[in-house]
Amino acid sequence: MDQTIVAFQGEAGAYSEQAALEFFAPQKVETYPCPSFDQAFQAVTEATCSHGVLPIENSLAGSIHRNYDLLLQHDLHIVGEYPLRVQHCLVALPGPKIEEIRRIHSHPQALAQCEKNLKRLGVELSSEADTAGSARLVREWQDAHAGALASKRAAQVNGLQILAENMEDDPANYTRFLVLAPRTVEASDPEQGDYKTSVVFSLKNAPGVLFKALGVFALREIDLTKIESRPIPGRPWEYMFYIDFAGHKDQRNCQRALEHLQELAVYMRLLGSYPRRRTDYEVSP
Amino acid sequence: MDQTIVAFQGEAGAYSEQAALEFFAPQKVETYPCPSFDQAFQAVTEATCSHGVLPIENSLAGSIHRNYDLLLQHDLHIVGEYPLRVQHCLVALPGPKIEEIRRIHSHPQALAQCEKNLKRLGVELSSEADTAGSARLVREWQDAHAGALASKRAAQVNGLQILAENMEDDPANYTRFLVLAPRTVEASDPEQGDYKTSVVFSLKNAPGVLFKALGVFALREIDLTKIESRPIPGRPWEYMFYIDFAGHKDQRNCQRALEHLQELAVYMRLLGSYPRRRTDYEVSP
Repeated sequence: MDQTIVAFQGEAGAYSEQAALEFFAPQKVETYPCPSFDQAFQAVTEATCSHGVLPIENSLAGSIHRNYDLLLQHDLHIVGEYPLRVQHCLVALPGPKIEEIRRIHSHPQALAQCEKNLKRLGVELSSEADTAGSARLVREWQDAHAGALASKRAAQVNGLQILAENMEDDPANYTRFLVLAPRTVEASDPEQGDYKTSVVFSLKNAPGVLFKALGVFALREIDLTKIESRPIPGRPWEYMFYIDFAGHKDQRNCQRALEHLQELAVYMRLLGSYPRRRTDYEVSP
Repeated sequence: MDQTIVAFQGEAGAYSEQAALEFFAPQKVETYPCPSFDQAFQAVTEATCSHGVLPIENSLAGSIHRNYDLLLQHDLHIVGEYPLRVQHCLVALPGPKIEEIRRIHSHPQALAQCEKNLKRLGVELSSEADTAGSARLVREWQDAHAGALASKRAAQVNGLQILAENMEDDPANYTRFLVLAPRTVEASDPEQGDYKTSVVFSLKNAPGVLFKALGVFALREIDLTKIESRPIPGRPWEYMFYIDFAGHKDQRNCQRALEHLQELAVYMRLLGSYPRRRTDYEVSP
């Protein structure tokens, strides 16, 4: 597929769509809305889309476990990551001033993340299915007293004005997205660049096995950035481990660490090596 | 408080209530329904209840993260655990046969877990807020063609008949509950019994720190049964680690492991030592 078409979960104006557009910028790409995470994975697997952009972790709410499970169920590769600073905008029809807004619609998590700022406005709140859908409802109703908490992109898409930016109480609010594709992208300079690698594995059930598995990285001074565990269906209290580490699979020490992990693991799959995107909270090397 | 009153999330007949009753059996205890996990924690903290029974992990769906976060926010101790085999019953008003049921109500997760068996029945499905509430609705409607997927306890509480047991497709379906109390219970034989200990800690952000932290257990041949990580609000990409290990805090080697972990941790809190309850999937020592 020559054209870049990016599958995301949600409707036009979703934070996932914004992440997709920002990741590929300045390249202009086509986006492809999907009702569920499953359908977004499916769209890439079936080559309806060239890429998928899926949320994997929010810095306040934690991991999006469904997407960890779907990574395992699909034969796709992680080719990039993008940490999106979640900035909830108060959007409304063009015209009214902020004082005229009487009711604000959004996803319950967005309403919760803006609790203090919303209290100051003293408006009614209404829970909806998602943020971009709330912006669309404001447009469809043509109600000058209705507002929505949504992305900047949702305001553009729905022809709404932005009455206030950064409505969220905690600015340290990031969602990290993974960029998925059917094939890996070869790195031009694996030894020099700033990369991350993701791997999933299971271990036999014995004392000290996870310690040994982490040892393959620690003994080579490879930095782990994330560890996540997910249950294995049919085997209660046994887990799949997902690990992100700093480095590229084609770097010599990472290659050796992965070979070493393969010796210890019952199951192991490399999910991908990709350029690391740091936020203000991460120091560059 | 002399009386045992057990807070749980949900309404009468919830799986959490069944877990509470089974954990304390043959002792008869009073149960105290709470609309949210937060309110169940609060009821124990404020001494309205003597205990709380909260789900922490399902063997198919994974950890219940909200309760990990609430453990950290409240000053309660884990004094027990209970793995409940989740057995979804098909319940209905007394009288009708299974062929007469036209529509089955339940929580979306319960409906999904019984997908194959429900397909065989060829009935309509309806998503509701929870399993026990679905059983109550069947009673309130007095609709002879309505059924619900819920616990045995929900059938008892609502005066319904059980048309079929074990409607779930995968029998390896357990939810592990924690029993919480304001004070720890001293073990009579910490060196001999079969115990588990839970601890939460954070580490400084440096390569190899998690490996070292797991080393305090591995070097003493202490078996880890669970590791979970949760984001630290305000510090994107830094995590709290929750670890369960086999052993009691008053056993000599566990005591030393915890002292060793304290040396490495930025923050550490012991959540409790409690008798281990094994399921068929775990081999006794």
